[in-house]
Amino acid sequence: MRTPTVGIDDFSLYVPQLYFPIEELAKARDLVYAKLNKGLGLEQMAIADACEDAATMAANAVLDLLHKNDLEPADIGRIYLGTESALDGAKPTATYVLDMLQDHFTDAYGGNCFLNCDVVDLTFACIGGVDALQNTLEWAAAKEGRIGIVVTSDDAKYEMNSPGEYTQGAGAVAMLVKQSPRLLAIDPDFGVATRPAHDFFKPNRKVTKREILQEVIELLPNVSAADVDLDELERKLAEGLEVNGVLDCNESHLLLHKATPVFDGPYSNQAYQARIREALYDYRRRHGSEPGQLFQDFDYLAFHLPYAFQARRMFSEIFMEELKYSGKWVDFILRNELEVPCADDYENREQYLTSCTDFLRQVTKSEDYRKFVQERIAPGEWASSRVGNLYAGSVFLSLMSTLEALLKTDTSAVAGKAICVFAYGSGSKAKVFGATIQQGWQEVVANFTIEARLNHRQAIDYATYEQLHRGVLTKNVADKDDGTFFLADVHEQRDETEGVRHYGYAAGWLLETT
Amino acid sequence: MRTPTVGIDDFSLYVPQLYFPIEELAKARDLVYAKLNKGLGLEQMAIADACEDAATMAANAVLDLLHKNDLEPADIGRIYLGTESALDGAKPTATYVLDMLQDHFTDAYGGNCFLNCDVVDLTFACIGGVDALQNTLEWAAAKEGRIGIVVTSDDAKYEMNSPGEYTQGAGAVAMLVKQSPRLLAIDPDFGVATRPAHDFFKPNRKVTKREILQEVIELLPNVSAADVDLDELERKLAEGLEVNGVLDCNESHLLLHKATPVFDGPYSNQAYQARIREALYDYRRRHGSEPGQLFQDFDYLAFHLPYAFQARRMFSEIFMEELKYSGKWVDFILRNELEVPCADDYENREQYLTSCTDFLRQVTKSEDYRKFVQERIAPGEWASSRVGNLYAGSVFLSLMSTLEALLKTDTSAVAGKAICVFAYGSGSKAKVFGATIQQGWQEVVANFTIEARLNHRQAIDYATYEQLHRGVLTKNVADKDDGTFFLADVHEQRDETEGVRHYGYAAGWLLETT
Repeated sequence: MRTPTVGIDDFSLYVPQLYFPIEELAKARDLVYAKLNKGLGLEQMAIADACEDAATMAANAVLDLLHKNDLEPADIGRIYLGTESALDGAKPTATYVLDMLQDHFTDAYGGNCFLNCDVVDLTFACIGGVDALQNTLEWAAAKEGRIGIVVTSDDAKYEMNSPGEYTQGAGAVAMLVKQSPRLLAIDPDFGVATRPAHDFFKPNRKVTKREILQEVIELLPNVSAADVDLDELERKLAEGLEVNGVLDCNESHLLLHKATPVFDGPYSNQAYQARIREALYDYRRRHGSEPGQLFQDFDYLAFHLPYAFQARRMFSEIFMEELKYSGKWVDFILRNELEVPCADDYENREQYLTSCTDFLRQVTKSEDYRKFVQERIAPGEWASSRVGNLYAGSVFLSLMSTLEALLKTDTSAVAGKAICVFAYGSGSKAKVFGATIQQGWQEVVANFTIEARLNHRQAIDYATYEQLHRGVLTKNVADKDDGTFFLADVHEQRDETEGVRHYGYAAGWLLETT
Repeated sequence: MRTPTVGIDDFSLYVPQLYFPIEELAKARDLVYAKLNKGLGLEQMAIADACEDAATMAANAVLDLLHKNDLEPADIGRIYLGTESALDGAKPTATYVLDMLQDHFTDAYGGNCFLNCDVVDLTFACIGGVDALQNTLEWAAAKEGRIGIVVTSDDAKYEMNSPGEYTQGAGAVAMLVKQSPRLLAIDPDFGVATRPAHDFFKPNRKVTKREILQEVIELLPNVSAADVDLDELERKLAEGLEVNGVLDCNESHLLLHKATPVFDGPYSNQAYQARIREALYDYRRRHGSEPGQLFQDFDYLAFHLPYAFQARRMFSEIFMEELKYSGKWVDFILRNELEVPCADDYENREQYLTSCTDFLRQVTKSEDYRKFVQERIAPGEWASSRVGNLYAGSVFLSLMSTLEALLKTDTSAVAGKAICVFAYGSGSKAKVFGATIQQGWQEVVANFTIEARLNHRQAIDYATYEQLHRGVLTKNVADKDDGTFFLADVHEQRDETEGVRHYGYAAGWLLETT
């Protein structure tokens, strides 16, 4: 059975019109900007505007993808969404995307235009989009003529003052998946490694009604907790007779959902590093490839990037391993004049291990590793520096960024080059897969215009940043918000329409380009 | 390219040990039991015990599936979970399932036993499990030897006194997907119909901190709203200095997640009926089959059943259509002595349409339709009558139920029979696919033991039902809770472990059966 070539035919990136300079955040939080910029690679963070959410960003990316490929709604067999910013626990965010697109195309193609399009959400922190891609590759491979869209969309938001704040970002990446792709051929047999972990997650946080009562009572200046009969209040609430609001539900508790995660940064870095390596081993096992061949098999490496320099900071161990297996280790040591620790030189194991850590730091700072990073990893970093973490979209932005960077090289040598993609999702899972650049790449990538898009955004000041973060604005901040979908309203009545979301489209952009 | 046969090799059902008789609910709510029982087919509802959640139920179903098929963890390439009862917005509930299974198998197979197993959650109300199945079929078809598990798990809970209350249920269905299945062969090219709708959903409900303050103040007997400076309180909260609890977050509002949905029953029924029909048309288009052949092509029909008799109550229109296209319409009218309304007989269109509705009711009550229901739909209903709605698992329970019912028929004639499956997810999407019963079916189905399992559950009284519903119990109610996974604790500290969930296993069952 000959498997047809499947892969990604095109990408579209949507980033909000607004960004907040990391330098401004550093000032506001009294952080050393150089550490964030030189150390982590951070320059700007994309900030979702007041009327943007995961659905609008995804719809914007998909619309752009459809337009630039002259596709009609009926051509698209599926739209699979990878997100961890879902707007609902049952109704997939993908249906909101479809809702916007359907409205948009009704005049041209009728209200049934997406009737036979299969949509669903896949959830696994930052790797749900890769899961959607892998399944859509398999689906496209199974039958000629199938065209699917995979889209990732997230608002990567952290609590203010938390150590995640400077890694924030927002945006969506859409990709067209089909047989005989113009851009990237991908083998759907991905390497995978999964281990349950609580490194970063968004639990439904349980809070009892009694806790809420106590909290509010503590806040009230003239009320003493001793004066209040909490048992009596709780009993009243259980009967559901006294209030018509948030506390009026049968349960003794409420579940809070926060857009911001519970996370442990160092633990998450460890999990990322371990899963990536385990998934690479699994990839080798599935493909019969040998350790030590990674840099022969692949010209570039693209990564999920929680911050721009995450990959370069954690990849040196695998880099070392590859050199050892390929027989280039001694050469590397000598050329870079490194001192290898030897257990015999130390009084105890702890001293030895410390020296090993120091040695790894030397490797990371060696001329060879710097060169390796510049040639193979850095092309995938620059866009991340300017938008921050996109969660599910981050690894695809790294791929897009690598490809756009290749436009500035000797383009005649690019087709046929291979990219190894390392994806990670907290919770935790990594996937590793290979992508080969196809003959038609240059024309496709020329239309990414990532850099141009990033250059035309609008900077916001700290005060605006804080207002957006607190969610107190009801209108978009961006001067130019035409040509994009926006959240028009959310029903607040506590009836059978509570939480219904309506979206709109500011049509200026269409007028400009047609 | 010859496509290999893929499908479902085996099923496992997990239902909680507890059930609540519908007759008791009818008494408590002053409802006519006969309407619920004879009208909707309801007898009992499965109720999740205090330490059960979507993850424990799924893990129980998967463990049973692994045990009865003598499978080792390393045999399983993926576990895809369809649920709308996710425990987290980023970390998939499937990782909790894996966590429990990994712990369970560590002694026998080591802590790495599921390392290369791919897990993820798919979310689309009651149809996420069918999406997981469709993708896993495609994945299994693409490479020999791949074995995947699809599992659905939900706690179908509604607010007390709401019109959804009597349709509640809980449970999980796991299925083994591979090439050359013993049980059901399935063509992965499903019919699909999608239209955005808000018929049933679980929005993140936005509530401002100010609203919470107001609500609590209203509850306090000795405090007048006029005495409280809400602006001042809000300002304090925005600064995040005054409290260390639920109100202490940057946003001006909280997002509430409720396990119970926002829904509109009649609208959801309409959407169900329309999507099912549209998906059937799409199925025909993809398979080149003609209208009027449905009852020739398929011997049984399995449905997503929000309540047991949903399908029989809404299928009569398609039944009529099939008769018309197959040329059996006149025969049907004459044999059942029905009076067909004719537009000329009525003074206006409204009268005519009313008579059409009456006519449809006659069709539904006709001897032929009753016979059709008894032969082709009822075999898939009886288990639903005794557990209620399983959300994502409901359609698979209907399939299992049909197969177990066939054990009581002339089993020599069963292999080769075909089942048409109608799945629906609010939001909204339907899928239609065909399943053909394989030679090895009888041995597999004999181990379902659905009826035996349902007969060995424990009834609870209204008081216990209400306590479980309110979430005030911390220990399981069931006398026998060994042989199942359970939720041991959830971290409540507001630090980087907030919301961490730990699970345990009561090992009695293993001791009993080995």
